[in-house]
Amino acid sequence: MITRNLDIVYAADILRQLDNVLILTHVKPDGDALGSALGLAALMRGNMRHAKVLLPEPVPEKYRIFAEGVDILTQAPENPEDEFDALIVVDCAANERVAAGAGFDFPREDISILNIDHHPGNAVKAEWTCVLPEAAATAEILVRMANLIDWDITPQAATLLLLGIITDTGCFRFSNTKPETLRTAAELLENDADQAMIIDAVYFSMPRSQQLFTAEMVQTHTVLDFDGQYACAVIPEELCKKYQFNMRDGETLIESLREIRGVKIAALLYQTADKKVKISLRSKDPETPVGPLARSLGGGGHEMAAGVTLGDCDLQGAAAILRGEVSKLL
Amino acid sequence: MITRNLDIVYAADILRQLDNVLILTHVKPDGDALGSALGLAALMRGNMRHAKVLLPEPVPEKYRIFAEGVDILTQAPENPEDEFDALIVVDCAANERVAAGAGFDFPREDISILNIDHHPGNAVKAEWTCVLPEAAATAEILVRMANLIDWDITPQAATLLLLGIITDTGCFRFSNTKPETLRTAAELLENDADQAMIIDAVYFSMPRSQQLFTAEMVQTHTVLDFDGQYACAVIPEELCKKYQFNMRDGETLIESLREIRGVKIAALLYQTADKKVKISLRSKDPETPVGPLARSLGGGGHEMAAGVTLGDCDLQGAAAILRGEVSKLL
Repeated sequence: MITRNLDIVYAADILRQLDNVLILTHVKPDGDALGSALGLAALMRGNMRHAKVLLPEPVPEKYRIFAEGVDILTQAPENPEDEFDALIVVDCAANERVAAGAGFDFPREDISILNIDHHPGNAVKAEWTCVLPEAAATAEILVRMANLIDWDITPQAATLLLLGIITDTGCFRFSNTKPETLRTAAELLENDADQAMIIDAVYFSMPRSQQLFTAEMVQTHTVLDFDGQYACAVIPEELCKKYQFNMRDGETLIESLREIRGVKIAALLYQTADKKVKISLRSKDPETPVGPLARSLGGGGHEMAAGVTLGDCDLQGAAAILRGEVSKLL
Repeated sequence: MITRNLDIVYAADILRQLDNVLILTHVKPDGDALGSALGLAALMRGNMRHAKVLLPEPVPEKYRIFAEGVDILTQAPENPEDEFDALIVVDCAANERVAAGAGFDFPREDISILNIDHHPGNAVKAEWTCVLPEAAATAEILVRMANLIDWDITPQAATLLLLGIITDTGCFRFSNTKPETLRTAAELLENDADQAMIIDAVYFSMPRSQQLFTAEMVQTHTVLDFDGQYACAVIPEELCKKYQFNMRDGETLIESLREIRGVKIAALLYQTADKKVKISLRSKDPETPVGPLARSLGGGGHEMAAGVTLGDCDLQGAAAILRGEVSKLL
């Protein structure tokens, strides 16, 4: 089933009519998932509604301070239709990515679902869907909705929604930063968003062990190839052990490869617990997009940021396969 | 002489009436100095005026691409009053910091000077002065002036002015980022500022040698002290030699200390060519400002970012003196 994409004016009016909701987002929540889920709960509470957020996984440590005061369930209710008017799913593009925890079916027919997202190709099954791919973050869509229905934005809601925008735009560095994104951020600052708290949590909170891990990664495990146009880091398990570093916390590591002058394509490879090789890819040049490369290996993603997981090979084997594909582009 | 600070409306009207100017900025120009000086020249040219920029030092390599097409003088004219209506000094707080090159007196009486800046305490001697300390960047003031006098902002001017705003706000991460700053940036994007070119030049152009230098700095030459609240890097000369790194290009190095979780005060020390010790200081906590600390040692700066140069001591001696001062704060 593909649900019809509602105009934001209509979707906002549906939001306005909901009095008591359960908010869900995607597994392994990032800054925009948390910012938009918790921010929507704060927004609704600030406008005399009731909202809880279902987060079956613990909130990542660096974002924990933002969750204070929000009503969070770690276990899904057995019969949500008895407790809530509707579910609202934010920032999640696929049914199987909804973080609902054990024993909770998703999608489901027994309760209305409002699906708000900015990922193109969103396929969440919902009664109401509002997907705006031009928005830099789901949090940005929620601010627009709040304005359309004349809702107040409390300082806590403003902080959480700005967290979503800042993390999804790399603090306004990525190309998804549009004039509207900057104006929305300006509006959130005027609503007393705590920008310093966000910047401190996102950019000035690197554990010293991660810093040392990164230093050794760029020194010892990073190779520049094709006249410096290709930077590839292959992370051995021992490096993670040495610094007790979990690659799940390594979503920004590839930035250390991307920042090198002259690099057009950056790749980061590591082995997962189930002995597959996970590859992250970034391009700095629209003429050498990594999206098609990732898809040719069975992965996916955007043109400039993509990824793929390879089974049946070790790290060096995967690096060799990847280098072969990169050689066709550079 | 302290010149009266003009209202921006009045200053903008003076700008409007100038037809042929020479633009100056401060020595060792950073992103806002170059962005506002070159951006003002592009802005004036786009509005049927004549403008040249005096840059006696070469433009730093990473910004060179932005200077293309702007009329730049590397040597000051002997009699500027014969060639120009006025001088415009941008982003420069003190007469002795104006980059004019050999044989050019500044300040001077033979030509009118318009002084546009955002540094509090600006003491440039000028006929007309417009200092707005609440602006995040001088470039931001220039956009406001352009709007006041209804000037077009060409794509090149927009790019240069956005460069100034992005570099002076750490890409909207520093606390000088205000709603007005974000709205000004939005307006520049709408005027076709080349955001990708700016981000690429400022954030994705680190020479590999500098990356390796930084990695070794954080690994081997950085000490955490006072329960991890103080991070201090002492850069030996050999490290610079090893990577052929010039500390003049190291203005962002201290960010690698500031980003560490738990650090409240960061310090970077290195020896200058004339055997003095230069100290950069950053604070992450308003309760432990580094401004007073720097001033107590004879230096200066803002509360959260300051610096001092010590003579008559070596690196280790300076580090010991500094640690003594820091111990009073932590």
